[in-house]
Order: sequence, then C-alpha cells, then structure tokens
Amino acid sequence: MESLGIGLIGTGFMGKCHALAFGAVKAVMGDVPTPRLELLCETPADKAAAMAGQFGFARATDDWRALVADPAVDIVSITTPNRLHHEIAMAAIAAGKHVYCEKPMALTLHQAEEMAAAARAAGVKTIVGYNYIKNPTFMHAQRLVQEGAIGRIVHFRGWVDEDYQADPDLPWTWRARHAEAGLGALGDLGCHLVSMAYGLVGPIESLVADMQTVHRTRPLADGSGEAAVENEDVATALVRFKGGFHGSLATSRSAWGRKNRLGWEVHGTRGMLIFDQERMNELQLYENQGPGAQQGFKTILTGPAHPPFGAFVPAAGHQLGFNDLKVIEAAALLRAIAEDSRPEPDFVAALAFERVIHAIAEAAHTDRRVVI
Amino acid sequence: MESLGIGLIGTGFMGKCHALAFGAVKAVMGDVPTPRLELLCETPADKAAAMAGQFGFARATDDWRALVADPAVDIVSITTPNRLHHEIAMAAIAAGKHVYCEKPMALTLHQAEEMAAAARAAGVKTIVGYNYIKNPTFMHAQRLVQEGAIGRIVHFRGWVDEDYQADPDLPWTWRARHAEAGLGALGDLGCHLVSMAYGLVGPIESLVADMQTVHRTRPLADGSGEAAVENEDVATALVRFKGGFHGSLATSRSAWGRKNRLGWEVHGTRGMLIFDQERMNELQLYENQGPGAQQGFKTILTGPAHPPFGAFVPAAGHQLGFNDLKVIEAAALLRAIAEDSRPEPDFVAALAFERVIHAIAEAAHTDRRVVI
Amino acid sequence: MESLGIGLIGTGFMGKCHALAFGAVKAVMGDVPTPRLELLCETPADKAAAMAGQFGFARATDDWRALVADPAVDIVSITTPNRLHHEIAMAAIAAGKHVYCEKPMALTLHQAEEMAAAARAAGVKTIVGYNYIKNPTFMHAQRLVQEGAIGRIVHFRGWVDEDYQADPDLPWTWRARHAEAGLGALGDLGCHLVSMAYGLVGPIESLVADMQTVHRTRPLADGSGEAAVENEDVATALVRFKGGFHGSLATSRSAWGRKNRLGWEVHGTRGMLIFDQERMNELQLYENQGPGAQQGFKTILTGPAHPPFGAFVPAAGHQLGFNDLKVIEAAALLRAIAEDSRPEPDFVAALAFERVIHAIAEAAHTDRRVVI
Amino acid sequence: MESLGIGLIGTGFMGKCHALAFGAVKAVMGDVPTPRLELLCETPADKAAAMAGQFGFARATDDWRALVADPAVDIVSITTPNRLHHEIAMAAIAAGKHVYCEKPMALTLHQAEEMAAAARAAGVKTIVGYNYIKNPTFMHAQRLVQEGAIGRIVHFRGWVDEDYQADPDLPWTWRARHAEAGLGALGDLGCHLVSMAYGLVGPIESLVADMQTVHRTRPLADGSGEAAVENEDVATALVRFKGGFHGSLATSRSAWGRKNRLGWEVHGTRGMLIFDQERMNELQLYENQGPGAQQGFKTILTGPAHPPFGAFVPAAGHQLGFNDLKVIEAAALLRAIAEDSRPEPDFVAALAFERVIHAIAEAAHTDRRVVI
Repeated sequence: MESLGIGLIGTGFMGKCHALAFGAVKAVMGDVPTPRLELLCETPADKAAAMAGQFGFARATDDWRALVADPAVDIVSITTPNRLHHEIAMAAIAAGKHVYCEKPMALTLHQAEEMAAAARAAGVKTIVGYNYIKNPTFMHAQRLVQEGAIGRIVHFRGWVDEDYQADPDLPWTWRARHAEAGLGALGDLGCHLVSMAYGLVGPIESLVADMQTVHRTRPLADGSGEAAVENEDVATALVRFKGGFHGSLATSRSAWGRKNRLGWEVHGTRGMLIFDQERMNELQLYENQGPGAQQGFKTILTGPAHPPFGAFVPAAGHQLGFNDLKVIEAAALLRAIAEDSRPEPDFVAALAFERVIHAIAEAAHTDRRVVI
Repeated sequence: MESLGIGLIGTGFMGKCHALAFGAVKAVMGDVPTPRLELLCETPADKAAAMAGQFGFARATDDWRALVADPAVDIVSITTPNRLHHEIAMAAIAAGKHVYCEKPMALTLHQAEEMAAAARAAGVKTIVGYNYIKNPTFMHAQRLVQEGAIGRIVHFRGWVDEDYQADPDLPWTWRARHAEAGLGALGDLGCHLVSMAYGLVGPIESLVADMQTVHRTRPLADGSGEAAVENEDVATALVRFKGGFHGSLATSRSAWGRKNRLGWEVHGTRGMLIFDQERMNELQLYENQGPGAQQGFKTILTGPAHPPFGAFVPAAGHQLGFNDLKVIEAAALLRAIAEDSRPEPDFVAALAFERVIHAIAEAAHTDRRVVI
Repeated sequence: MESLGIGLIGTGFMGKCHALAFGAVKAVMGDVPTPRLELLCETPADKAAAMAGQFGFARATDDWRALVADPAVDIVSITTPNRLHHEIAMAAIAAGKHVYCEKPMALTLHQAEEMAAAARAAGVKTIVGYNYIKNPTFMHAQRLVQEGAIGRIVHFRGWVDEDYQADPDLPWTWRARHAEAGLGALGDLGCHLVSMAYGLVGPIESLVADMQTVHRTRPLADGSGEAAVENEDVATALVRFKGGFHGSLATSRSAWGRKNRLGWEVHGTRGMLIFDQERMNELQLYENQGPGAQQGFKTILTGPAHPPFGAFVPAAGHQLGFNDLKVIEAAALLRAIAEDSRPEPDFVAALAFERVIHAIAEAAHTDRRVVI
Repeated sequence: MESLGIGLIGTGFMGKCHALAFGAVKAVMGDVPTPRLELLCETPADKAAAMAGQFGFARATDDWRALVADPAVDIVSITTPNRLHHEIAMAAIAAGKHVYCEKPMALTLHQAEEMAAAARAAGVKTIVGYNYIKNPTFMHAQRLVQEGAIGRIVHFRGWVDEDYQADPDLPWTWRARHAEAGLGALGDLGCHLVSMAYGLVGPIESLVADMQTVHRTRPLADGSGEAAVENEDVATALVRFKGGFHGSLATSRSAWGRKNRLGWEVHGTRGMLIFDQERMNELQLYENQGPGAQQGFKTILTGPAHPPFGAFVPAAGHQLGFNDLKVIEAAALLRAIAEDSRPEPDFVAALAFERVIHAIAEAAHTDRRVVI
C-alpha cells in the first residue's frame, strides 16, 4: 500500500484539523501509508476551490455525494455539522470507503447504531475523532493504570467544561435545537470525557444523572424576541463501572473561564493519577512509595519517553498542541488500514461512548437509574 | 463582660486547637471578652494535670461531669470522640453553659436534632467546629457571591478528599464501626463540604447519591484476622439547590495524595470562583469583564483586604494556617456571647449540614431521590 | 528552669507576632520552659497598658530602659523600628538579658558587629528573627540537601519580592531615608533570602551586584513637594559560594503582585529542590531516580513527617501560617536557654547574613567584586 | 508570487521542524506564498532520498553546495550542526537565496557579523530560528508591554534551563568542545532568552556575568578515560538595559527536572507579566487595578484573541505546540519575501542577541563589566 486518497468534507474547525493532520502525518511518523489529498468538499463551489488551494487538495467539489463516489478517494473524512454525519457515513460505507468521522457520531443513538452495524458489515475501517485519547500523556496514563502503578482502581472522577455558552446574551443558534444539534454539552463535550473514562478504567454499568438548561431562552439574532434552548447546558452523573467501583462525570458549556477543561482523577489502592487538558503536556502521579516525608504528586512533563511524542519533537517539555493529536489519530487510521486491524475507536467502540451520553440524558429525564 | 471561663474536654487534635485558640484570641482580636482557661478534662487524671500545665489551664479533672457542673466554667468545649458529643452537650446545655462542639454534632441525626432543640430551648450560645467557613478567603468568596461578582449562581461542584484510609494494610479501628464512628467519610469530611456549599449558595432541596466501601475488611491489629468496615470510604451525590440550580458533592477518605483537599467551584452567569483548602490562602476568580484577550482566572492571595486576616498579620501573602481558623471560630463564639447574637453555625444551623450527610447515606442505601 | 520572664518592646507587626508566639509556645511544644509575659513596652503609656491587656502581659511601661533593667525580665524581645535595635540590644546585653531581636540586626554592619561581639562576651543567648528558616518545609529541605537527596550542589538561585513600594504614588516615609531605615529592599527582604541560602548551601565567598532605585522621589504626605528615596528598591547579585559553585540573588520591594515571594532553587547533580514562601507548606523535589517516563517535580505537602509540624496539627495538608513560624523561633530560643546551647541564628550567625547584604550594596556602588 | 522553492539542509530535530512548518504553513495561514518542497539535503545519499520521501520533498541530495546552487530553490533552510551555519549561509547568500537559519547563527561573533553584513549587502531575506518569540502568548505580552498595561518597565528577570547535561555520567560529545559547539548553555539556550528580553523590553547596554562548568570532565564513550568539557553548563548575568532599568539572565543545561524552562518576569510601575515556556499557552498578568481585595495574577489561556492562534484552532484552551511556533516563523519569512519587508529577526536583528551571549562569556572570563 503506497498511498491512500483522502476525501475531506468540511473546512471548518475540524475540517482544517483533518487537512493539517493528513498533510503532516507521513512526515511526522514515517511508517504510515502516504495520504494523497485528493478531493475537498465545501459549499459553495468557489469556496471549495479556494480551500482546496489553501489545504493542498488536488481537486474540489461542492457535492459530498460525488466525493463519496470518487474512485480516487479511499478515505472519507466527515467534519460537517453533526446532523449530516449519519447520512454521509452511511453513503461512504456503502461505497466501500474507509471513514474518519468527527464526534459525536450522530444525533441519535439509533443512527449511531446503524453506522456501527453498517461499518462492521462492510468491513471498512472507521475511526471517530475522540482525539484526546490520542494524547501521549493520556496513553502514558493508560499504561500506568494497566501496569498497576496506582494499584487496583477504586474510584473515577471526570469533568469537561467550557464557556462557549456561558454568556446569557449570546444569540440563539442551531446548537440550541434538539433536532439539529442533538444533545447539548453532553454531545459536544461529555462524550470526550466518556472516551477517556473508558480508556482508563473500562465500561460503565449503570448511572443516575441530572441535567440543567442554565439559559432557558436566548435572544434571536434578528432582535425579534427569544427562542427556547432545547438541550442541556450542564449534565452530571453518578456512575457505576463494570469493574465494581463508582465514579462521577460532569460537563458544562456554561462554565466561565474554562476553555477546554477536560480532566479526571483515577483513584487507586496505591496511588492516584490526575489530568487536565488545559495543561495537556502534564500528568500528575502520586504513588504511595518511598518515605512518607518525600511523597507528593509528581508533575510529569510529556516527552520522548511517552510515545509517539518523540515523533514530533525529540525533547521533553517542548509540548504538543491540539492539532498534533489529530495527526496521531490520522496515523491510527492509516496504520489500521495498512495492517488490516481495528483503529481505536472505530464506530463500534465509539458507539459505547455515545450510549453513555444518551443514558445520562435518559436518567436525567426519568430521574431513574439507567442500566447500560 | 470582662472574661469567660473555659472548660475544655479533650486534649487530642481538636483539644489542642481549642486550647491554642482560646489562648490567642484576645491578643489577636482585641475586641473580644477575655477567655480564662479554667478547667481541662482528660483521662487519666495525671494526664489531665500535665496537659493543663502545658495548655495553661488553671485546673484539671478526669471527670467531664464535674467540668460541666463547675461554676467557674462559662463555655464547655467538646473535643472528645464523636460518640460522646451528644451526652456531654446535653449535660452542658442543661447546666446552662455555652457549648463549643466539634463536628459532626453526633452519631445520628436524631441526636443532633435533640441537641439543637435543647440549645434553642435553653437559650445558651452554641457553635459547631466548621472551621473552614471561618477562613477569610472563604468569607471573601461569600461576599463576592453575595455582591454578584459572578452573577446569578448556576452550578456548584464540591469535593473533600483525604488519604487517611487509603492504605489497604491499615489495621481496623473504631472508625470503621457504625456504632462508634457513625458515618465514614461523610461524617469526617463531607459535612465540612456541606457547610461551605450552604455558606456560598444556600440550602439543598433534594439529592441522589452513591456510596462505596473501598476496603470492605481490614486486618485486626492483633493479627487475629479481618474485621468488617461498616461505613463508607467514598460518597457522591447529585444535589438540587433550593436556588434552582444543580450541583455535585464528593468525598473520599481513600484518595491517595489528598491531605486536605476540600474544594469547590461556584459557576455564575458572569464568572466563577474556585477554592482548594490545600492552598487555603488563595482564591481563584474569573470575571467576564474587560477585553477577552486579558481574561483569565485571577489568583487572589489572602491579606488584610480580607478581614480578619489583618488581625493576625498586616501583610498579604504571609498566610494563615489551620490553627488560625480556630481562633476566628473562638472569636465568633465569644462575640456572640458578648452581643447576645447567634454564632455561625450554632447547633440549629449546623443541624442543616448534618441532615445533608444523612440524606446522602439514605439516598445511597435506597437508590432513590431524597428530599431534605 | 521553670519559667522565663518576657519583656517585649514594640506592639506593631512583629510585636504582636512575638506576643502570640510566647503565648502559644508552651501549649504547642510542651517541652520548653514556660514563658511569663512580664512586661510590655510601648509609647505612650496608655497604649502600653491597653496592649498589655490585649496581649496578656502582667505589666506595662513606656520606657524601654526600665524594661531592660527589670529584674523579672529574662528575655528582651526587640521589635522596634530598625534604628533602635542596636542601642536597645546593647543595653539588654549589658544588663545580662537574653535578646530576641528582629532583623535586620542594625542599620550598619559596624553596629551589628558590635552587637555580636557584646553578646559573645556577655555569654547571653541571642536570636534574630529570621523566621523563614524555622519553617518545617525549609528544615526538611535542609535535611534533604544534607542527606544528599539531590547530590552535590551545583547552583543556587534565590529571590524575594514584595510590592509594598511598587506604587509610584505612595507618599515618602522614613523607609526611604538611609539614616533611619538603612538599606532598602536588601534590609527588609534580601537578608531573609541570605539566611535561607546559608542554611541550604552554606556561606558566600564573593559577589558582584547591581542596585536600582525605581522611584527616585516620592511625594511628601503634606503635599509640599517631593523627597528623595535614598535606598534601593531593587538589588541583584551574582554570588560565588565557598562550596565552589555559583548562584544569584535578587530582591525587589516594587514587584507588583508579589506579596511575600521569597523563593529559591537548589540545583544538584542528582536533583533539584524548589520553594516559594507564598506556598509555604509545599516543597518541590525532583530526583533523577526511577524510570524517566515517571520523573517529574513532586509537590510535597508539609505534615507531621516534617517536624515540628505535628506539634501544631497532627494531619498533613492542614497548613501552618506565618505566625506559627514565630512560635518555632521562640521555642528555639527557650530551648537554647534551657540547654545552654546556641540558638539558630544567634547574633554571630546572623551577622554573616547581614555582611552579605552590605557587601551587595558595596559591590553595586563600586561596580566591583566584593570578597566577604 | 505564486510559490517559493524550499531547499532544506538537515533532517534532525530542527530539520523535521522546518519540513513540517513548510508543509503546513499555507494550509494554516492561507495568505502566504505556497512553499514547494523542492530539495532535501542529508548524508548519506540514501538517507537523503528516504527522508525526502517521508518529508514530501520532490528531490534529494547529499551535497549542500548543489542545493544552494539549485535554481529551483528560493529559500535555503539551514538546520545543520552549528559549526556549518556560517559556511552554508555565506554560500546561500552569495547564490542570492533567502536564508532560514537555526540559532545560534554561528560559533563566533565574528562569523555572525559576516553573515549579517553579507545578507544586508545581498538584499536577500533572512530569518533566524528564534521560534519562542513567535508564540502568540509572547506576542500578546509584547503588545501589553507596548500598550502600557503594566506601566513603565522597571525590571526584567529571565532564565532558561534544561537538564540535558545534568547527568554526571553522560559521555563526552562534541557539544563539550569549544571548536565544534562554540558556547555551551549560552549558545543552546541563553540566546533564546535574550531574544525574548529584547522583544519585550529592548536592548542591553552593559553587563557583568559569571559562568560555571559543573561537570569539568566527562567519560569518553569508548571507556578510554575522561575528556574535558570546554564550555559552560551554567551562566548568569546582571544586565543594564538601554531603557534605564536593570535585570538578570540565567541559563543552565544541568538543571534537573527542567525540560524547557524558558521564562521571564517583566516588572512595571502598574503591573507584572510572567511567562514560562513549559506552559507556553499561559500568560500571567497582574494589574494594579480595581479593588485591592480582588487583585491577583491572572492566568490568561492563549486563544483566538491572541493572533495568529486562531489560524491553528478557533477555540481557546486547545493549545498550540512547539511545532506550531515554527509554522508561524516560516510564515514570517514567506510574508517578508512576498512583501519585501524585513522578517523578524533577520540576521541583523539576531546578531544583536548573539552579541549578548558573547558579551556574557567575555564578562565572565574577565570578571569585568562589558559594554555592548
């Protein structure tokens, strides 16, 4: 396998990330198939052409169906608004393409289940953009947990907060509509936290939950009045893991000052691990080891000792950024295609994360424990 | 009112704190009645005498009933093991004494209710040792919330973790017995968190909760086997405040590396406040104010601008310690006696905090929402 | 030795600290002679009487010579403005009293030398208020250095900054006059840093230095114009230690935002230690030990494993405050008197610290290396 | 100007950074000329060919003279060992190429001066890889200083420490030889600090300094004995800025635990700014503004409000990494070529930084003040 043709749909926040990732991944990693930037889809057509020039794609289109059908395209990257994920992914799978889809997979759990089933049936490779679990810092935490550095896991706490909906005066947008955005903070943010929890301490068995809409209406942009916010600004859950211990999850999109506060604590019988995405190159480790007078949380700065950090920079403390995580994610997909293995997380694995956010919504609505 | 006679029962961790507080409070504050260190109770009698010498008490006894009955004693300080609080407090109230009692007030909610009722009926002054709400840093946070610095409150998160029961090899003690210790982490730690939540954002209306005993048995000290741990190591709750917003509480006594991790976030419509007792002289404040490019969490170092810090040291950044909080607490009691006002929190106010921890235990046992 | 009579001169910032320290030290430590609060000196006489009542002193006077001569006074505590230290200390020594003197010892090095010589000749015990080296966190750092935890010392960096002279609009005070205040930031702050450097890595052999007066004049309080600031706001030095390695020292009294930023780094061949007084209950330790992937700076929270922390509170993370350091300092003096040993730092030891700040001033004035 | 041909010499740490930067810059920025990856030089030839494939270069060579002479090459990127910088840069300038050279420019100041003079005479564009001043966080700090957010500058402190030469057992390498590496920590690290100081507070007028070689010999890799370390592990300087205020600089390559500790404080009459490269997406700002009780250091998280952050990610808190700085640097060169302006810092500007590190070495050797 010499090279793989990339078809990218979307040129917004995530579209640019995918373009940069596929542009850099071969130079960074060396040992992956070379991605060819074949076709870029955006609307209108002239914007598509302009962005193809900027991103280095060979061709442009304003028709995602044409992209999905294009024989030079091996991988379809979906970075559209969430409500289009399902339709495009289903078409791409049907066309036998590998699919790289941003999270959340779909607006409803039912759609996500269809996508997972279709991907499995078609035998194509899929990956969902849970980029935070591609952080070398996170992968080191996973290794430490697996090697028993903090003993048996006894508790997990996680949170993910931002402030993009904190301002009461922000105008109403489609993000506030269930039919267009699906869930609120849970879909944007909460599912990332679930992906980290699963990667660290395994699946959740059941949960109780609460949700709040902090700002129940927002002003319409045209000044014609207020419209209802239909989805949640804040959600919290008490979870029981299959491993036999408990934990909690919390998310808010109305948390002033939090820009990307995705973090967690893993409590073990011999120590603790703590992480905060706002300092994504640091891991806090406490071990009950050595003289008590010298115990404390260690701040480990990510570096070449935490692969694949060294593929980017051979010196610790020099820091990876957000876009580097997408490079690692793209590499995971390319390698899985080359090796015919499952990328992490493919549609089936990611479905499990999305089940949890929908279970939180259900538990909050019914005020009852939901078994997953 | 020239001076007040102090009768202190107990010379352990909290006993020493009370002795130091009463010894320092006049020199620190100036404007409080002078406490006279009249009588110290400890067992056996020779230890009582020795500790009276060390602590500067005029007399010693090994009989708490004698102390309670002593005419020179105006205030009874109770720092015994929790299971004795109720009996001593009831006797002291009956004897017409003012009472300074360590938290939790009692082993059961019923006992605490009796104590509050008796105190109210007798008209004596009472205060419970919720010392963390006496921190000038905390009182400044309260003022900021009240003045609207962060707008309308929309969310609260709190946690309080320590690691004194984290080690699986620690031998079994009375702390593990329901009949002697009452609740576990909730009674030792969780109630402090509740006192802060109430002080910042007001009362809780209802909650759901979960509890875990991480280490279900512990080795007996004599090597004769294992005994059951009857109370919880970890508890979590999702709470709904009367103010109409939600929040979460969490506590663990098995959280490696946490020494006194009592902290919270208050989310508002215009900002956020964050506190961590392990850095008790710092307050984090985010305000949505001024140019976005200059917004960020401010780390405010407590100082004379945050009364009564300046009564201890007239220079910011010089830091108060834990024992200073007890001085402020003692001053609150002395002032309330002098002014015939209610100290904060008296038995009635503290009862509300203790209702919450018992509600958490009940919600966890029944897996149902509990209305408070 | 049953008890020792205390005569305290001054009731300002440091006067209150001494009063509180002598009031608490027996209760905290147990194993020290009991201080009797005999006589308090302040002017005018009615303020002296009032403060004696507040601080718990038996008697009051407005005449420091009477205090020094009083037969019931065993220890003279000097907390007056700096320009009086020398005269009072010389008189107290002549009267055969032990002396507890605040830093800096005197306005000039010559005066300090006289004080050290007189104390040595008289055989009385002396101690200078270098309270930061009494912090259990600091003493633990000293032990770690001595035990070789960070290997051979190769470098030292220290700084001590505050902002009490940062505001250009502050009116002129006596602090700006050489004849009344002596040195500026070096005398107020810099000497504390030297005491820590000496305690950690030993004496300085030679240095070069620079000084700045940031605000060359200040408005007179009466609005009649501006007066010159005669001493330095900022000083910096490059030092060579007798141990064969280099280092740097810096101090500013015009550093906005710094409230008590007294800190240092000790670089060793096997690790590093870092401290910041604004987080005085934390020590940062890096050791080149164990797998590289798990190395990092450890944040050690001071606790009972770091004596004498446990004498104040038996639980880590509960924190000491500034005033607790003065208790440890008072205990050091009382113990040295009881044991007939040298308190740390007595006038002779403290003289070495003060030589350094005067050497910095000289090196800055002459732009030449000064050998100490 | 449609596109510019890139000729890159070197494929190590910095070579990869340049390749990634030129590969990404058009997609990130949009408004820059498109770089064409024309020719890659490495030895031996087969490695050059392999790396050209990985990095996406059209052609490969093992002869840097051929690269410099190649008509399709417009920009020569020099990422070789330091000792080759001068010769290659002089040849490239002679060939009329624009030059992107890693720092330090050369082994000696004389060589650097030649390079600056040649570039100026030839009229080509040059830029030196002082990447840390390309950080949006840094550029925001510059703006704040320029706009007077912290008032008039009164003091500067800077440091840059790593631990790559901290281990006494590391074998001797060419880095320890003056003839091959030039200066030690000053050349590797110190010059970056100078670039930041100049960018923030302007040029240095004179200085005194000290240097240490911590590990005077190192074991030869073949076990045949020890060889001398000829350059410094640690350097410190007290500097006087042309602006009339003082400051200090410090650097060490033997500072355990420091991975990329490049930081500084700028003290002003109205506030302070603090930065640490190990947390490169954060800026600390203190302003003497608003009520004292609410003052504190603000932690500003870099985001779209700090251009060109938003060109990478449109959301604050998502973080840039080290490699992103090189993208901004490459953009600066491309834009300067397109606009016929001076890139920052070109050889002339960078020469000023390198003068300072050589002045530090001279001042340390002579123990005298050196005027720059």
